[in-house]
Amino acid sequence: MPVYNFSSGPATLPESVLRTAQQEMLDYNGTGISVMTMSHRSDAFLSILHHAEQDLRSLMNIPSNYKILFLQGGALAQFTQVALNLAQNHQRVDAVITGNWSRIAAEQMGKLSPYLNVHIAAHGGEQFNYTNLPAPETWDISRESAFVHYVINETANGVQYHPVPKLGSDAPPVVCDFSSEILSRPINVSDFGVIYAGAQKNIGMAGATVVIIREDLLQRCTDRIPNVWNYQVHLDRNGMYNTPCTYAIYIAGLVFRWLQTQGGVAKIAALNERKAALLYQTIDQSGGFYRNPIAPAARSRMNVIFSTGNPELDARFIQEAALNGMQSLAGYKTLGGMRASIYNAMPLAGVETLASFMREFQRKNG
Amino acid sequence: MPVYNFSSGPATLPESVLRTAQQEMLDYNGTGISVMTMSHRSDAFLSILHHAEQDLRSLMNIPSNYKILFLQGGALAQFTQVALNLAQNHQRVDAVITGNWSRIAAEQMGKLSPYLNVHIAAHGGEQFNYTNLPAPETWDISRESAFVHYVINETANGVQYHPVPKLGSDAPPVVCDFSSEILSRPINVSDFGVIYAGAQKNIGMAGATVVIIREDLLQRCTDRIPNVWNYQVHLDRNGMYNTPCTYAIYIAGLVFRWLQTQGGVAKIAALNERKAALLYQTIDQSGGFYRNPIAPAARSRMNVIFSTGNPELDARFIQEAALNGMQSLAGYKTLGGMRASIYNAMPLAGVETLASFMREFQRKNG
Repeated sequence: MPVYNFSSGPATLPESVLRTAQQEMLDYNGTGISVMTMSHRSDAFLSILHHAEQDLRSLMNIPSNYKILFLQGGALAQFTQVALNLAQNHQRVDAVITGNWSRIAAEQMGKLSPYLNVHIAAHGGEQFNYTNLPAPETWDISRESAFVHYVINETANGVQYHPVPKLGSDAPPVVCDFSSEILSRPINVSDFGVIYAGAQKNIGMAGATVVIIREDLLQRCTDRIPNVWNYQVHLDRNGMYNTPCTYAIYIAGLVFRWLQTQGGVAKIAALNERKAALLYQTIDQSGGFYRNPIAPAARSRMNVIFSTGNPELDARFIQEAALNGMQSLAGYKTLGGMRASIYNAMPLAGVETLASFMREFQRKNG
Repeated sequence: MPVYNFSSGPATLPESVLRTAQQEMLDYNGTGISVMTMSHRSDAFLSILHHAEQDLRSLMNIPSNYKILFLQGGALAQFTQVALNLAQNHQRVDAVITGNWSRIAAEQMGKLSPYLNVHIAAHGGEQFNYTNLPAPETWDISRESAFVHYVINETANGVQYHPVPKLGSDAPPVVCDFSSEILSRPINVSDFGVIYAGAQKNIGMAGATVVIIREDLLQRCTDRIPNVWNYQVHLDRNGMYNTPCTYAIYIAGLVFRWLQTQGGVAKIAALNERKAALLYQTIDQSGGFYRNPIAPAARSRMNVIFSTGNPELDARFIQEAALNGMQSLAGYKTLGGMRASIYNAMPLAGVETLASFMREFQRKNG
């Protein structure tokens, strides 16, 4: 029985990536040692880092005035780190709240007060109980603000902006959490000041965090910030200010190369749309047995949430699915229900297997 | 030709650990998925985390009033994180400087001024040009200080406290960087308030950081600290506040189990002494061809630094050693010369090979 892992992150990886990692575990490329044990300053690792960065740049079409960093601590660490670097002198920060993670981001940035002041620019919880997204035109943002922050895909709530919000030329720089979005569809990096993403969804293993930052914003990183949180310091040392999470960067590089062999981001985006459509159709055609509360235009293509409305039945669904090789379908801990995370590495076959299990489960329990 | 990796970190790991990781890469323990891709909330991973913590507790004899966290960002992240958690209200922090890392720690904690105030309690650079260690009795510390910070083994400078400093009962809590020391010899955890260590030397791969903290100190973690830096928040969520670096924790667990099979910390400590003694003897018996500037009582058993006094000859040594399977023997970037990092996982055979290469190199070039 094939196993499909629908975990929201750490999430499934392409089998070919794991096989390469397996083969190279004791001897990377004739060095006689593992990537896990090699010095981060060795030629072999510097080449791994360089290629990972170049491949990400090429996959996402990242312009040359954007810098790339592989840091640690996931998106949660960036909530405060990005604010420390980009805001100061009691500047206003505009926070758009659209779900669990953007709410936490605003809260955590708020802990830096009075270093900066968080202004809620829109609140999808108050407006829509997180079942729809505040339109970018309605965001209460100011050009005087240090930046506006939002989360493009809310992993727990299953909402995602389509199309990517375009803000006017009088908007402040846009800082965006791309953790469960990055590399899943073509985006215009120039629309953003900073893009950051925990690696454990579409990039690789937990532990690495990608930060893509527009050069001119680096002027804001003051020397008063402890070095380990200072983007400029990390860039000045070519990503080697502290020992980077070398193995996670190696895995990311393998994932980037795999994505190239799949035809790149545009190609995988088409497949991602097809995968999501299949699950949403299964839900919508279930005659109410399965429910997804999200407004159709805001439905996430990465995290499909659904439930039967009956917690006991949901629990049975999750359990029986696991017995049938479909793992980690439980919804976010505070939300319950089911969630199928279908990132780039989830094959269409996995989604088809889930859709057919859903129909079968409905037949038996509907 | 066997390859021996003398890198200071990321550093060599036991071959059996890498072989297990290799075998389990695509299917951990019958789960059908990799540890790298499994949810951090899955039973399989929770068990990995639990056992890693229990094995570390048992190996180090960690008393029950100490908590263990696996965090991210290495020791450099802890320099500021520990200070944020333990000091506040402009409290004094006593910093003992004995080499590169404790100097950087004091500098970085200083960036948190005026939140706290760093007082240099001793300065091995000014006193001994980092070739000897300030005796603990001479540290200018105050019981009113939030804590005293030192680095028990200076990885770059090759100095290490023997025996472990014992401070009087009127000393402030001791916070200690154990990155290149942890698990290398028996220590009394109760001598410390906080022990922290980057994993990439004696624990496993880069990316994980172990923090061992005495319970009563957690009362100091105020709610004003952003959650991702707050030890108490991480403990309240059982180490799951943010997605932990799951694969690095898995590798750490494999290393802990390997260490148990080696007979534990006391057994490995005896081997570590023997390994270090062999290299220092080779240096001392070279008639001045090889030099180690460190006072014998302060010599590190983990990082043996030496040079010929001639940078060109040093470069040739490093290059020829690499050709003979002994990798990453270059000294710290700002210090030059050679450094052999001989952590737990470096077998005696590797050190014997290096010692005999040193004698041979001297014969040819002496």
